[in-house]
Amino acid sequence: MTIFDEELMHLKELVLKMGGMVQSAIKDSIHSLVERDSELARKVIEKDPLVNALDVQIDEESIRLIALRQPTAGDLRFITTAMKITTDLERMGDLAEDISERAIELNEEPPLKPYIDIPRMAEISQGMLRDVLDAFVKEDTSVAYDVIKRDDEVDNLTVQLFNELLFFMIQDPRAVSRAIKITYIAKYLERIADHATNIAEMVVYMVQGKMIRHTEAQ
Amino acid sequence: MTIFDEELMHLKELVLKMGGMVQSAIKDSIHSLVERDSELARKVIEKDPLVNALDVQIDEESIRLIALRQPTAGDLRFITTAMKITTDLERMGDLAEDISERAIELNEEPPLKPYIDIPRMAEISQGMLRDVLDAFVKEDTSVAYDVIKRDDEVDNLTVQLFNELLFFMIQDPRAVSRAIKITYIAKYLERIADHATNIAEMVVYMVQGKMIRHTEAQ
Repeated sequence: MTIFDEELMHLKELVLKMGGMVQSAIKDSIHSLVERDSELARKVIEKDPLVNALDVQIDEESIRLIALRQPTAGDLRFITTAMKITTDLERMGDLAEDISERAIELNEEPPLKPYIDIPRMAEISQGMLRDVLDAFVKEDTSVAYDVIKRDDEVDNLTVQLFNELLFFMIQDPRAVSRAIKITYIAKYLERIADHATNIAEMVVYMVQGKMIRHTEAQ
Repeated sequence: MTIFDEELMHLKELVLKMGGMVQSAIKDSIHSLVERDSELARKVIEKDPLVNALDVQIDEESIRLIALRQPTAGDLRFITTAMKITTDLERMGDLAEDISERAIELNEEPPLKPYIDIPRMAEISQGMLRDVLDAFVKEDTSVAYDVIKRDDEVDNLTVQLFNELLFFMIQDPRAVSRAIKITYIAKYLERIADHATNIAEMVVYMVQGKMIRHTEAQ
């Protein structure tokens, strides 16, 4: 194994580390909502700078490797993909922070209704993130394609939840403020799933060396 | 001027072309809402694949230049920044499409109230995009920093509009569905401003060769 191989492996590990931190942040943010644990929500918010620091580190390391090793073909695609993936991971971390902020607000008011769709949406989104990181590491396009397909499930659940909450709001004006916050959390989860889908498309591009974004995958 | 200089200039032109298309899309989407012109909204949606095609083209050209010319330092940073900027531009284009979809829905119902805050938010967001593209081309960090500062204005207008619409919804349940769609449009504009801010941070990074993302700029 050459030094460059080791450097590439290290870069891969950094991306996985960042992905793991974002996965925990999403899991904890939803837990803080469902279990009404605002202390946990505050911890998610406090930890976000660590995710951001890794984003910077991965960017710097990628630039360094391109300049120093002058990689071509597959290796170059791998490094530029890593740089792009971290942008999505960083924003997923921000969305976990947004969920935590809404959770803290919602925890201060009486529960509107039991959370059923939100944990389900979170579960699918988290699964998509876990699998897409796996697809990236193993350079496995079939897993990546599978992630892209699951995006629709999250979109459908968002529409379903939105309609249900609309009913609550029309019935009871006092529910409006809380219901809107819950629709926001659904939107955040939808965007987390979108980011996982973006990463999946990049992984396919990286592996196949061709661009599927904006074509079949749409 | 070397061939490589010309290639870099061509890459810059492609990014500007893509930025110009996104600017038109945002402008037209808001116009379609304010003037209740659903035909225009449909045109914005139809044109989005052109933006996506440019995203692919810029990515391919960037990879080709890195592999072929093996740029270092400033040039390398410029090319990787171009690749990252297009991801943000592409998503801004998607958000203009989202605005157009909500506009078509809202145009089918009676107006809730005159749109005042939305055009104001759109104006600021568009100004941020225009200036950040200028900052990228001229490698001007002071313009980029100025864009970053303006993000707060958009955030404040979103909160203000949200509170106003909440009042509408509580007063009149029939307003709920329309009011929520308007808050969504405000959120889309907020995200467009966020993307402009992301690009501004990347431009500063490109020029100064250091990473301000997630530090002073936050």
